[in-house]
Amino acid sequence: MIMRNIKLLIEYDGTNYGGWQRQKNAVTIQETLESSINNITKEQIKVTGCSRTDAGVHAKGFIANFYTNSRIPENKFKVAINSQLPKDIIILDSREVDVDFHARYNSKGKTYSYSILNRNDPMAIGRNYIYHYKLPLDLEAMNQGASILIGKHDFAAFRTAGSSVKTSIRTVTQLDVEKDNNFIKIYATADGFLYNMVRIIVGTLLEVGSGKIEPSKIKEILEAKDRSEAGVSVPPQGLCLEKVYY
Amino acid sequence: MIMRNIKLLIEYDGTNYGGWQRQKNAVTIQETLESSINNITKEQIKVTGCSRTDAGVHAKGFIANFYTNSRIPENKFKVAINSQLPKDIIILDSREVDVDFHARYNSKGKTYSYSILNRNDPMAIGRNYIYHYKLPLDLEAMNQGASILIGKHDFAAFRTAGSSVKTSIRTVTQLDVEKDNNFIKIYATADGFLYNMVRIIVGTLLEVGSGKIEPSKIKEILEAKDRSEAGVSVPPQGLCLEKVYY
Repeated sequence: MIMRNIKLLIEYDGTNYGGWQRQKNAVTIQETLESSINNITKEQIKVTGCSRTDAGVHAKGFIANFYTNSRIPENKFKVAINSQLPKDIIILDSREVDVDFHARYNSKGKTYSYSILNRNDPMAIGRNYIYHYKLPLDLEAMNQGASILIGKHDFAAFRTAGSSVKTSIRTVTQLDVEKDNNFIKIYATADGFLYNMVRIIVGTLLEVGSGKIEPSKIKEILEAKDRSEAGVSVPPQGLCLEKVYY
Repeated sequence: MIMRNIKLLIEYDGTNYGGWQRQKNAVTIQETLESSINNITKEQIKVTGCSRTDAGVHAKGFIANFYTNSRIPENKFKVAINSQLPKDIIILDSREVDVDFHARYNSKGKTYSYSILNRNDPMAIGRNYIYHYKLPLDLEAMNQGASILIGKHDFAAFRTAGSSVKTSIRTVTQLDVEKDNNFIKIYATADGFLYNMVRIIVGTLLEVGSGKIEPSKIKEILEAKDRSEAGVSVPPQGLCLEKVYY
């Protein structure tokens, strides 16, 4: 018997979770979602996510899919699962998709955002969603540095070691640094991201913005393919998975 | 001996507090702040706040003052008190002011903001700072209704009963409804606000925006001076005290 394949669009606040992926010593989004679905379908569901977000990272447009024998209408899964979920995870859409659809393998690209408060004092409000950065930032220099990363490159310098992917070549199609008073938001779109790639790109752009390195240094970092040349990986709470493309 | 009068500029996330004012059955901002200052000065400080924000309400620009015999330089109070405070309360500025300065009585006006997510689904991200409103909103109608409230009026219809103030006449100098995609922010400035006034104004503007009442109805509500004519008081989490004027 062929099971139904259900695709979910999910928003979550990652503050109180050990990331997406099931693990032993922390409550995760995946585990919480699977329990909620199991309560509904009375099955032993395994949910496949579009990526493995780290602890503290958020998502407005996470995609996941799962197989079920349940006869619940496709759009009713949303309401049913939401009734079981805690307030920090919300299903925005549920629909039945082709049996071959795979949330991770079929992804053609993703957009992430990274939020920064750029002022001397840290913040009380929104501190679980925003990274506080003290040093004054030169937006023009940041966008100049960002433009060098646009295109197809080997991003070996912009990943945390230990990931098992075959190639570190990725195509970045958008890397915008936007400013609204002292609030800075960086949008990054690529066909795929290496482990910690957005956070290391942001850390490097902050070095450019604060004048520690020249924008042109980005080209050297790319070519060196050496992680130690790039900036630090900024903390998880500023990061949000905005959208996944299929 | 004349004590020193210290003025504080404070940002706080009101989510985990029972409001500003000391009370028996909840931890409050005032109490938390007083304990922190007492740890520094070894006195029994009483902090005077610019207003009594409700449980769950936030502030980016709350003003308070306290009297002390401590000889700590005025700007050092900020760092010293912050070292004692939890992460959801932050002193942004500390300075010595005239001995007569009173955070509440000397206030000449305040600006509040109210944040709304206007979409069908509730949100996981930012849910402690934003009110979720489902019905589609007509911004033009809301701003039309808001313009009627600008000026000096008797706002008796826009307050929760039980407050002891002598007059319900206030002068509103700003009431702007702004929109950024499905995010709506309302800014209200007045020489003073009655109890729950901003939240009832927002509740009434939402009735205008969703078409339940005409913008012109606002004039009738003002003139009727009857609380039951105005809209509901929207929940506290969307409200933020932005700035106090002296």
